[in-house]
Amino acid sequence: VTVTAVSGAAVGKGNYRHFMEKELHEHPAVLGDTLRQYLDPKTLEVRLPRLPFDPARIGRLTISACGSAFLAGMVGRYWIEQLARLPVDADVASEFRYRNPPLADGGAAILISQSGETADNMAALRLLREAGQRVLSVVNVPESSMARESDGALLTVAGPEIGVASTKAFTAQLAVLACLAIGFGRARRELSTLDEGRLAQTLLEVPSHAAAILEQDAQIRELAMEVAKARDVLFLGRGAMYPIALEGALKLKEISYIHAEGYAAGEMKHGPIALIDSDVPVIALCPSGPLFEKTASNLQEAAARGGRVMAFTDAEGEAALRRFAERVIVLPRIGEFATPILYAIPVQLLAYHVAVLKGTDVDQPRNLAKSVTVE
Amino acid sequence: VTVTAVSGAAVGKGNYRHFMEKELHEHPAVLGDTLRQYLDPKTLEVRLPRLPFDPARIGRLTISACGSAFLAGMVGRYWIEQLARLPVDADVASEFRYRNPPLADGGAAILISQSGETADNMAALRLLREAGQRVLSVVNVPESSMARESDGALLTVAGPEIGVASTKAFTAQLAVLACLAIGFGRARRELSTLDEGRLAQTLLEVPSHAAAILEQDAQIRELAMEVAKARDVLFLGRGAMYPIALEGALKLKEISYIHAEGYAAGEMKHGPIALIDSDVPVIALCPSGPLFEKTASNLQEAAARGGRVMAFTDAEGEAALRRFAERVIVLPRIGEFATPILYAIPVQLLAYHVAVLKGTDVDQPRNLAKSVTVE
Repeated sequence: VTVTAVSGAAVGKGNYRHFMEKELHEHPAVLGDTLRQYLDPKTLEVRLPRLPFDPARIGRLTISACGSAFLAGMVGRYWIEQLARLPVDADVASEFRYRNPPLADGGAAILISQSGETADNMAALRLLREAGQRVLSVVNVPESSMARESDGALLTVAGPEIGVASTKAFTAQLAVLACLAIGFGRARRELSTLDEGRLAQTLLEVPSHAAAILEQDAQIRELAMEVAKARDVLFLGRGAMYPIALEGALKLKEISYIHAEGYAAGEMKHGPIALIDSDVPVIALCPSGPLFEKTASNLQEAAARGGRVMAFTDAEGEAALRRFAERVIVLPRIGEFATPILYAIPVQLLAYHVAVLKGTDVDQPRNLAKSVTVE
Repeated sequence: VTVTAVSGAAVGKGNYRHFMEKELHEHPAVLGDTLRQYLDPKTLEVRLPRLPFDPARIGRLTISACGSAFLAGMVGRYWIEQLARLPVDADVASEFRYRNPPLADGGAAILISQSGETADNMAALRLLREAGQRVLSVVNVPESSMARESDGALLTVAGPEIGVASTKAFTAQLAVLACLAIGFGRARRELSTLDEGRLAQTLLEVPSHAAAILEQDAQIRELAMEVAKARDVLFLGRGAMYPIALEGALKLKEISYIHAEGYAAGEMKHGPIALIDSDVPVIALCPSGPLFEKTASNLQEAAARGGRVMAFTDAEGEAALRRFAERVIVLPRIGEFATPILYAIPVQLLAYHVAVLKGTDVDQPRNLAKSVTVE
C-alpha cells in the first residue's frame, strides 16, 4: 500500500534518474526549511509551537516509531538525554505496543513517521492515549491520521517523498528532534542561552554543509564501486553515530539487497568481529570528537584482523584513520551535536550509488511499501 | 586475553568433541542448580539474598552488559517491566558508559557478566557508583572484579565456561533474572502469591524440558545442514523472543562466521524484508501465546516473498506454521514466562552444529576472546 501526499507522477523527477536521487539532492533545502520553522536564525532561539506537555514537568519520555524514523528517534533519545537530562525510552512501535510498558501518569511520548499512517504507530498512539499519555507527533503529512489523532504535531517540511527508502524525511525528522532537544533543555533549565545559541548556530550550518557533501558525489560513487562487490557489510559507530550506522545498513539492505548490519562499535568485539575478513567491508562513521579515539581503536582492531575499513570522518580525524583504513572520506567539520544529521547524507548517497551499480529498482525495491499500513 | 576461573585443561571435555558441546549438555544441571539457589521448590517462593536496594522504592532501573549477557539483560528488562511494572533502561555497556545518561538519585542498576572482568562493564560499574547508584551484579565468577566492586552480587551457578561462545552462562543469567523479576514483582505488590507460585512452577519445569530439547539433537543437526549452506540468515522473534533471536544470530556469527542478523519480527517489513529470497533462511522463534498470530503473519509474508521459513514452536503452534514453513521444530510446551530460557537452547545448539559442519574452531573462534578486557 502506497500512501503519499502527492502522487509520483505529479511531482516528477526533474533531471534526476530516480526519485531517490532527486530527494537526496533536496537535503539542503529541506533541512533549511525545517530548521527555519523551529529556529530563529537572528536570535538563535528555538521557537516551538505550544506543546501538549510541559517538558519541565515530566520525569520520563517515550519515543516510538518504525524503520528509519525509529533510528531518528534513537538519535533524538541521545540528544534529549544529553541536553535536557530527561530519561527517554525508545522502542520500535511493533515491540512497544505489545509489551504493555509501565507508563507513569501524566507521562509524555513522541511518535515519528513520514506518512503518519503506519499501522504499528497508530496502534502505539492509541495505546499511549488510553494510558493517559500526552502524545506529540513528528510527521511529514499534516493531514495524516497520526497528525490528527495526536495531542500535538510538529511537521517536517520535507515535501512529498516518493522513493520507498526514506532520505530527506529522515534528516528532516532529525532536524525537528534537534530543535525539540534544545527546547526541552531550555525548559528544564539545563541549557544556558549561550549553550542554546551555540547549538542553534551549529544546526544552521547543516544545510550548507549538506550541499557540500552532495558535491562529493563522485568520491562516494567510487566508494560505492567497492561496496557493490560485497555481499555483506558492517556499519559501525558510537553514541549518536550508532543509529546512523544502523541507518546506513538499513538503506543498503532496502535498495541494494546487500546484507548490511549496523553495530555499536564497542560491541563489535563481543561477536561480530568473528565475521570480519577481506570479504566484509567495515564502514565507519567516525567524526572527530570525544568518541573518536575509542571508535578508531575498534576500527584498528578490525583492520588488524584483515578487515577493509572505509571511514567517514572530518579533516581532524583524517590522518589517524589513514594509517589503517583502505578509504577515508573527509566530510565538512561541524559541531558534534549536528554530526548525526550530516553523516546520514553520505551513507544514504552510498546506498543509492550501490543500488544503481547493482541495477536494482531503486525507487521501488522488492518486497517493500512506502507506508506500511499492515502489521 | 582469556580469563576463566578454571583452566580448560583442568576441566576436560569428557566424552564430548568440544567444550561448547559439553557445556550445552550442562544446561539442565546448570539451570537446576541456579534455580535452586533462588527458588524454593517446596513453597514455590523466590528467596533472594539481601539486595543492595529496595525494589519497591526505586522509580527506574538501569541494566547494562555486553554481548550475550546484554541480550539476557534485554529479556530481564521485558520480565521486570511486565511483572514488577518498573521501567527499565537497558543499554550495552560500551554505549552506556559514554552517553552520560541521566540517572536519578538513589537509583539502582543491574550489571550482567559471565567473567565479571569485561572492561566496558567495569567502567559502567564505576560510573554508576560515582553517580550514586546502587549496583547489583549477576555474575558467574564469585571472585571477579565485578562481584567484588558491586554493592551486591547474585551468582549464576554455571561452573567454568571454556567455549568462547557463551551457552550455559547465558541461560543461567536468564534464570537469575527471572527470579529477580518475580522477587521485584512481589516487593512492589504487583504479583499475588498465586501468581508467584504459578511463575515459579513454570521455571521449575525448565530443566527437564531443557533435557528433552537436548534429546532433539538429531533434528536440530538436520536443520543445521540446511543452515550451513547459507551465507546470510535472518532470526526473527517478538517480545522476549526478540532478544533470543538476537542471541541465535550472535551465536551463529561467532562460531560459524555466517552473517546472521536478529530482528524484531514486526520490523522486518520496514527494511530487512527486501533481503529475503531463497538464499536467506528465516529462522523464527514462535512459541504459542499472545504474540503467536502476529509473528506467524510476518513469517507468512516472508514465505510469500520466496523466503525459506524454519520455525521453532510448540505442539499448539505447529499446524499453523506447517502451512508455509519449510521446517518446523516442535519444542516442549511451557508457560510463556519461561520460553526465552528454553528457546535459547536450540538456537545455541543449531549454531554449534552449523559450526561443526563448517569445520570452524568451535571453542576458539577467530578474532574472539572469552573475556574482553580491552575497550
